[in-house]
Amino acid sequence: MTRIAICAPACPITPEDAALVEAIAGDYGVRVHVHPQCFASAGHFAGDDATRLAAFLDCANDPGFDAVWFARGGYGSNRIAQSAVTQLSAAAAHKRYMGYSDMGYLLGALYRARVGVACHGPMVADGRRIGGEAALRRALSFFAGEKQGLEPSLAGEKHPVVAFNLTTLAMLAGTPIMPGLAGHVVMIEEVSEYLYAIDRLMFHVSAHLGGVAGVRLGRVSDVPDNDRPFGAEASEIVADWCARHAIPFLGGADIGHDADNRIVPFGLASGAHPQ
Amino acid sequence: MTRIAICAPACPITPEDAALVEAIAGDYGVRVHVHPQCFASAGHFAGDDATRLAAFLDCANDPGFDAVWFARGGYGSNRIAQSAVTQLSAAAAHKRYMGYSDMGYLLGALYRARVGVACHGPMVADGRRIGGEAALRRALSFFAGEKQGLEPSLAGEKHPVVAFNLTTLAMLAGTPIMPGLAGHVVMIEEVSEYLYAIDRLMFHVSAHLGGVAGVRLGRVSDVPDNDRPFGAEASEIVADWCARHAIPFLGGADIGHDADNRIVPFGLASGAHPQ
Repeated sequence: MTRIAICAPACPITPEDAALVEAIAGDYGVRVHVHPQCFASAGHFAGDDATRLAAFLDCANDPGFDAVWFARGGYGSNRIAQSAVTQLSAAAAHKRYMGYSDMGYLLGALYRARVGVACHGPMVADGRRIGGEAALRRALSFFAGEKQGLEPSLAGEKHPVVAFNLTTLAMLAGTPIMPGLAGHVVMIEEVSEYLYAIDRLMFHVSAHLGGVAGVRLGRVSDVPDNDRPFGAEASEIVADWCARHAIPFLGGADIGHDADNRIVPFGLASGAHPQ
Repeated sequence: MTRIAICAPACPITPEDAALVEAIAGDYGVRVHVHPQCFASAGHFAGDDATRLAAFLDCANDPGFDAVWFARGGYGSNRIAQSAVTQLSAAAAHKRYMGYSDMGYLLGALYRARVGVACHGPMVADGRRIGGEAALRRALSFFAGEKQGLEPSLAGEKHPVVAFNLTTLAMLAGTPIMPGLAGHVVMIEEVSEYLYAIDRLMFHVSAHLGGVAGVRLGRVSDVPDNDRPFGAEASEIVADWCARHAIPFLGGADIGHDADNRIVPFGLASGAHPQ
C-alpha cells in the first residue's frame, strides 16, 4: 500500500477534484489523504501563506506518507518554498513530490535542498481536463512504482534532468530557491503566452543556464494570437537563444500543460527510481 | 539647436507618429531626424535584428546628434542591446538616450556600459495617447535642456536612480546587460499585468536587488480582472517583497505607461544634467 498526502501550496481544488482521485486510487494500491487545506481560500490562494506552509509541512514531515502530491498550480508556491525547505524533517527525505506549473518553485527548492525526489508530472486538478483521468492514472501508477508514465527521453539519458514551466523557471532564476543546473538537461514547457513573451523569457532563462547539458522543449500550447505574426515558431525561438549561449538544443520533450504530460523525476534517471 | 535622432529598436511607428513630433519640435529649438528604419517591418519587429541594430548605431555614433530618442517599445530591444553597446564610438558617449518599457533593455545596457545618459521617459509613439502631445512636449523640452519634466522625487534624491518597467527589469536581471544597482533608488512601473503576476515579478526582482538604496513604485495601470480578487493592492505587494529582502520601500514615483510619465535620467541627479 502506497500512502500519498495531497496538499495545495498555490490554489485550491474542489471536493469533486478530490473525489475523482479517491475513486481510482485503489486500482493502483494507493491510499490518498487529502489535506483539508486543499479546499481553503484566501484571496488568490488556497489559504494564506501560513496555512499553505503548515499543510505542506504536515504532509512532508509525516512518516506515514510515501509521497506528497500537489493538488493544483495557479500561483503561490514561491511565497512559501524558501521557508518550507528549512523546516523539513528526516521523514521528508524519503518522499516523492509531484506537480508542475507553479509547483516548479517547490520542486526547485526541494531539488536545491536535496530533499526527496522532486517530480514534474500531473496534479490532482488535471482530472478536470478532457482525458484528464489518464493523467491521474499515470500519476497514481508512478507513485505505485511503475515506470511507463516517464518522459520517454529519460530511458536513454545519461545526464541529470529537470523540468519546469518556462515562466516558473524564469522567475526562479537567481532567487534563493534556484537549484544549480550545471550538467543537467533542462526540459521546459509553456502555456497561454504570446510568442514575443516566449522570446523574452528565453532571453532571460538562457542567460541563467550556463553550463547546462542541454535544453529540451515540451509543448507550447494555447499561444494567443497577436496583432501581427511574430515571425518564428516556438522551437525556432528556443533554438536561437540556446545557440546564442552555446547551449545544446536537444529537441522535444513529452511534457506540457495537458493531459498527456509525462513524468520527469529530477536528477539522474538511475537514481530517481528506488526499487 | 538641439539635434535628435529617432530610431526604433523594437516595434515600428507610422509616418503620422513621426509627423506629430516634427510639427512641434521647432517650438523647443529641436531638430529631429527620423531614421527610415522607424517604419520598417519584419514579423513582430521594426526590421530584423541587423536592421534595428544598424539604425541604432547610425544614430548613436553620429557626432551630428545630441540625443537618441527611441520611437516606441513593444518588444525587441533586448535582442540587440548586448551587441549594440560593444559597437559604440566616442560620439555615443555625449548623448542622452530616452525611452521606457521595452527600451529598458537598451537603457540598462547603456548604463551598465557607462555610455551617455540613459533616460526613462516618453517616446514618439506616446503621441497616440489621449493627452499624448504633452508627453512629446515634455520630452522635447527635456532634450532642449529644461528640467520641469523630471520625476519630482529627483529634486531631493541623494542616491543614483534608475527606472524600469517591472517586467523589463525582471527579464534584465542576471543577463549580460544588467547594470549593477547597489546603492541606487530603483523606480518601477507596470501595465496590463494581473496582480498575481506583479507578485510573481516582485518575488523575482526583489531577489536581484541586493544592496539597492530603495524601491519606488510608479503607476500600475490597466490591471486585468482575474476570476477572483488577489487579496492585496500593488503597493502592498511591492512593500511585502521589499520587506522580505530588507529593501526600503520609499513610496510612489511619477512614472507609468501613460501620458503623464515623467523623466528619470539614470545616475546621480547632479551628474545627469550637464549645463
